[in-house]
Amino acid sequence: MVHAGAMSGSGNLMDFLDEPFPDVGTYEDFHTIDWLREKSRDTDRHRKITSKSKESIWEFIKSLLDAWSGWVVMLLIGLLAGTLAGVIDLAVDWMTDLKEGVCLSAFWYSHEQCCWTSNETTFEDRDKCPLWQKWSELLVNQSEGASAYILNYLMYILWALLFAFLAVSLVRVFAPYACGSGIPEIKTILSGFIIRGYLGKWTLLIKTVTLVLVVSSGLSLGKEGPLVHVACCCGNFFSSLFSKYSKNEGKRREVLSAAAAAGVSVAFGAPIGGVLFSLEEVSYYFPLKTLWRSFFAALVAAFTLRSINPFGNSRLVLFYVEYHTPWRRKTTKLGKYPVLEVIVVTAVTAIIAYPNPYTRRSTSELISELFNDCGALESSQLCDYINDPNMTRPVDDIPDRPAGVGVYTAMWQLALALVFKIVITIFTFGMKIPSGLFIPSMAVGAMAGRMVGIGVEQLAYHHHDWIVFRNWCRPGADCVTPGLYAMVGAAACLGGVTRMTVSLVVIMFELTGGLEYIVPLMAAAVTSKWVADAFGKEGIYEAHIHLNGYPFLDVKDEFTHRTLATDVMRPRRGEPPLSVLTQDSMTVEDVETLIKETDYNGFPVVVSRDSERLIGFAQRRELILAIKNARQRQEGIVSNSIMYFTEEPPELPANSPHPLKLRRVLNLSPFTVTDHTPMETVVDIFRKLGLRQCLVTRSGRLLGIITKKDVLRHMAQMANQDPESIMFN
Amino acid sequence: MVHAGAMSGSGNLMDFLDEPFPDVGTYEDFHTIDWLREKSRDTDRHRKITSKSKESIWEFIKSLLDAWSGWVVMLLIGLLAGTLAGVIDLAVDWMTDLKEGVCLSAFWYSHEQCCWTSNETTFEDRDKCPLWQKWSELLVNQSEGASAYILNYLMYILWALLFAFLAVSLVRVFAPYACGSGIPEIKTILSGFIIRGYLGKWTLLIKTVTLVLVVSSGLSLGKEGPLVHVACCCGNFFSSLFSKYSKNEGKRREVLSAAAAAGVSVAFGAPIGGVLFSLEEVSYYFPLKTLWRSFFAALVAAFTLRSINPFGNSRLVLFYVEYHTPWRRKTTKLGKYPVLEVIVVTAVTAIIAYPNPYTRRSTSELISELFNDCGALESSQLCDYINDPNMTRPVDDIPDRPAGVGVYTAMWQLALALVFKIVITIFTFGMKIPSGLFIPSMAVGAMAGRMVGIGVEQLAYHHHDWIVFRNWCRPGADCVTPGLYAMVGAAACLGGVTRMTVSLVVIMFELTGGLEYIVPLMAAAVTSKWVADAFGKEGIYEAHIHLNGYPFLDVKDEFTHRTLATDVMRPRRGEPPLSVLTQDSMTVEDVETLIKETDYNGFPVVVSRDSERLIGFAQRRELILAIKNARQRQEGIVSNSIMYFTEEPPELPANSPHPLKLRRVLNLSPFTVTDHTPMETVVDIFRKLGLRQCLVTRSGRLLGIITKKDVLRHMAQMANQDPESIMFN
Repeated sequence: MVHAGAMSGSGNLMDFLDEPFPDVGTYEDFHTIDWLREKSRDTDRHRKITSKSKESIWEFIKSLLDAWSGWVVMLLIGLLAGTLAGVIDLAVDWMTDLKEGVCLSAFWYSHEQCCWTSNETTFEDRDKCPLWQKWSELLVNQSEGASAYILNYLMYILWALLFAFLAVSLVRVFAPYACGSGIPEIKTILSGFIIRGYLGKWTLLIKTVTLVLVVSSGLSLGKEGPLVHVACCCGNFFSSLFSKYSKNEGKRREVLSAAAAAGVSVAFGAPIGGVLFSLEEVSYYFPLKTLWRSFFAALVAAFTLRSINPFGNSRLVLFYVEYHTPWRRKTTKLGKYPVLEVIVVTAVTAIIAYPNPYTRRSTSELISELFNDCGALESSQLCDYINDPNMTRPVDDIPDRPAGVGVYTAMWQLALALVFKIVITIFTFGMKIPSGLFIPSMAVGAMAGRMVGIGVEQLAYHHHDWIVFRNWCRPGADCVTPGLYAMVGAAACLGGVTRMTVSLVVIMFELTGGLEYIVPLMAAAVTSKWVADAFGKEGIYEAHIHLNGYPFLDVKDEFTHRTLATDVMRPRRGEPPLSVLTQDSMTVEDVETLIKETDYNGFPVVVSRDSERLIGFAQRRELILAIKNARQRQEGIVSNSIMYFTEEPPELPANSPHPLKLRRVLNLSPFTVTDHTPMETVVDIFRKLGLRQCLVTRSGRLLGIITKKDVLRHMAQMANQDPESIMFN
Repeated sequence: MVHAGAMSGSGNLMDFLDEPFPDVGTYEDFHTIDWLREKSRDTDRHRKITSKSKESIWEFIKSLLDAWSGWVVMLLIGLLAGTLAGVIDLAVDWMTDLKEGVCLSAFWYSHEQCCWTSNETTFEDRDKCPLWQKWSELLVNQSEGASAYILNYLMYILWALLFAFLAVSLVRVFAPYACGSGIPEIKTILSGFIIRGYLGKWTLLIKTVTLVLVVSSGLSLGKEGPLVHVACCCGNFFSSLFSKYSKNEGKRREVLSAAAAAGVSVAFGAPIGGVLFSLEEVSYYFPLKTLWRSFFAALVAAFTLRSINPFGNSRLVLFYVEYHTPWRRKTTKLGKYPVLEVIVVTAVTAIIAYPNPYTRRSTSELISELFNDCGALESSQLCDYINDPNMTRPVDDIPDRPAGVGVYTAMWQLALALVFKIVITIFTFGMKIPSGLFIPSMAVGAMAGRMVGIGVEQLAYHHHDWIVFRNWCRPGADCVTPGLYAMVGAAACLGGVTRMTVSLVVIMFELTGGLEYIVPLMAAAVTSKWVADAFGKEGIYEAHIHLNGYPFLDVKDEFTHRTLATDVMRPRRGEPPLSVLTQDSMTVEDVETLIKETDYNGFPVVVSRDSERLIGFAQRRELILAIKNARQRQEGIVSNSIMYFTEEPPELPANSPHPLKLRRVLNLSPFTVTDHTPMETVVDIFRKLGLRQCLVTRSGRLLGIITKKDVLRHMAQMANQDPESIMFN
């Protein structure tokens, strides 16, 4: 029955077969782990190994191996995550170009690789190398003109639809958990929730493949969040190879925290940012040991990626992030037909994106262009300034110049692209495909920032006598840098969406190398956090977690209400009394009935129904196994045998059946609070100690129980009663 | 009596006068705060303000001000810390140069400022501008020759002795707490310990002044740790202006954590590194809100410093750190005569340092030179390579060259300087002056790194056919960068001393701007941590805390022993029973006697001596005040009045005196664990919830008490029993 329960989740069958069969030590699906218990189990294991290690050389070596297995797992995760990220980068490069054309010398070459060896000297010519054929050239032998444009347009849409269709089908059939970015679920898992199969091998495989497909299809999404999920799947896979981690849900989560750091490290090429992201955004329990291991995993992953990636020169290739707007999707009718939804959104994206040069190219290229400043010879439309013919300055110090026609065109196209990007991104997130949000939100911020930057630049050029410009902007000086505005805009937008602060700034400067811009970036991060907090304290991940109803106790929510434990505990007034076991007066049958009729995780054990003095807590799962065992193996155990939890058997009438001792399934140190304890303290205890439940007593008498779900429900109730309170503090 | 107790510490009288008189809400000196209680007091305060804010516009504005006061405090701390750091930098610059000479145009100019407007064109000539006179030129009108050298040497020693003597006298007389780096004490204070006056105004003033003196005197110490102390003093000062922080020790510590970040931010010019240092190294309770505020404070501080510092161009001026080797000092006999000790060490330092060019200059200049690479025209002795006369390469891409005579001389001098620096640094730390350790340990690492770098470079040049060099080092290429070796060496040495990892790497690249060297820096940090951990897990700060015997529960120590709460609680077997109060049978006199005869912080309250069922906990201080109050104000309260903690008064004989109700001083939710709770869990609870004490019960019956000191004592015992255990895990 217990095993069947674990199979009935909404996940994928194949991944369940990967999972070991649950035994006494494991938890059921969609349940919360008990951190304290996991920790003490690990300590037991560790003590056993340490004491054995003195027995023989072999045991000593085994204990050393065990001690170093953490670092080994980190190394393996770093290597695999780096390799996968490198392969994804290469594949995306090729498939994105496939939408426009094909390489004649070898069809698996991307545009850049195809023309790499070309002899053409200028960049413009090299891009038009003869080996690379656009579809119109290949199919109808025309490279210019309306019909060629239409044919290329159609091929672009067709390829996009094909990729998107393949992706959504793979996700639906093989690994439903591979959709979305995965970060909210990983946050929840790291906080101690069990979602079986979420980090399984099939999810890893399918997410990697479909990520390539959706990014190549040109949908408005990023690959960073999904890469974090992929890295966590790697972490889960390798931790299953070492019994130290596979058998302990707490230790496993330490590995997963480090894997998340490795994921961000390869997603952005930002190892330090990855560690901080894991610390600030994702992790729940993050001891210093995990910090050091994360650091190591992130380092190995970044190094592996750098060794693989043939385009290692371009920083921005490693540079995408993620988004979610699930409330939107919850209301669309299309949401019920995930495949159709993906096809429609892809078609709309492809149709609208193709004509506008700023949406046709990949988003990371767009961001790269927006971040960069204009040299004198830059061919980009954004750099079409009117040069002073008498200019004699060196190339790298160009004064502010009046904008040319190209810049004005670019401004219009950027404005349209901005609106389109905002709208389509809202519809894209939450579709049943892997999708991240860093890149789209950075793109939105960068577009807005660049437009503001160009505006200010032109104002300063034409009105340098205005009071705001007078002090720092002499005529002929380079006083406004539109690229920096774009960078700050991207950071601000991303900060507003995710509420990252320190990790955001570190990622931004690891990405751009712009260490000198740390002050504007920090100012942008703080400001965007203030502004966004005025609309609501939740970042996108927390919002997603709440929408999905995961039992996540956010450390950021402050609980400041005056309620007491007695207001939250069950049973409430009027409810039937708590289901308890007595220490020496219930029969096996009584207990079996109780187990059958309730679905609680465990039962408090009291001295007797009259005194109700608490002596311990028994886990449901362990009770079931112990009774089953005793019935099969111990003689004389029948339905009306008395069960006792005391050291000594109770005194029984002469003809009564053999009693059953169950002291070893009794937890003698259950966590208790008194009924007068402020809920604030209770919330703190649940959060910091990672409890599943807590018993409520008064002078040793059991009054009730508070579970993690009760705490979350109460917090939600109080927040709804008093929405103003979040404005303060 | 209670007040007198607070005055009897070893600190400075003046700072005690700064402190408010302790009242019900405060703690005694050298006691530990109760984090849960502080938190719930703040929640009460916050609730009161929120509910009042609906009453009138004025109250609403007050509540808004209260909500924003945290950010205001951060702004003020950032401004003051940045200003002080800027002033210190300027003063050190001037006084360091004063040891060598004086500026004739204005004596308060440093060498650089003096010669700033000089007309000489080359750097060498400008350094010899006529307005700047060495002491020998000024006094005997000789600039060269043996007698001039000796005179300059003597003046150098005299000035150094004068500065050091002034510093140690000021510290001794006015602010004994101003000595050392302060980081171990700040760590302890942040973990909840009270050291009155440690962060007072006098300490702030004296530490700022003496820091200038000791750094200028040329002792082998850095100014970074003391700057963190100075910033924390600023934080303490500003938090005393806002009742939200001054009246709550928990909230005050949030401000201090942020102030520590601001301190590192100005010490190294590394705002991100500062936040991470505060998080990784210093802070105990670091909620995300504090992360954001620290970030803001660090930003403001860095910005202020940048605005003040006229030498803002040189990154390394902001660049020093800190060290301690107190075990050394504990054994020297000189330690008993602190002034003499300082004078002797300063004299030795000055005498040995002057002749060697690598020890005469300031340590930060030395590090800067070691980090930098040699251009073709570099005049430094370290760059005396033999140039190929046919070389036509551009200046910034110089191939490896054979070393000239200057490099060999430099190697010898560096080797001597390295030995001297290691030895003198050991003696310098722990003296009764402000002293930090980052800069000296970085200097040691940088010297060793540079020497290894030059060695490898010459090996590669002369033996580029060796198998290790063959693949990556063609003849005529620039394949070894000695400056990078120096940087990595500095990071490794610092990492070994402090065991910082992530914050170390971030600080290093904020300092050097060397974002591309992140991989070697990370590798160095991880390796040095591994190697250092093999010799013992404690960083320098933790070692210092243990030596001083502060009650600090380190989150890094893992407790993995099998002991139970019953093994640690008091009373032990054979000891007299616990001093308890009963809920309704003791007289006022009984309680007063109990208070007089014991010095416990509080007493558990039980139903009766027979049942021993726990109902709550009463604080000693609150009991005393309540009884005093009642005796003065309530009629009919005499020595044999019964005291009761229940809701209803007990039934008393007719002629008995009026009973005294004390329910409001009873804490109805004391923290309890059962006697079977593993100590591992108890340690976790103390650490995470910041408890002062915890009661031990079995089925509601009170058995004993565990205080923070009991926990620390037990952990130390277990660690001594089984020193091997730290090798694992």
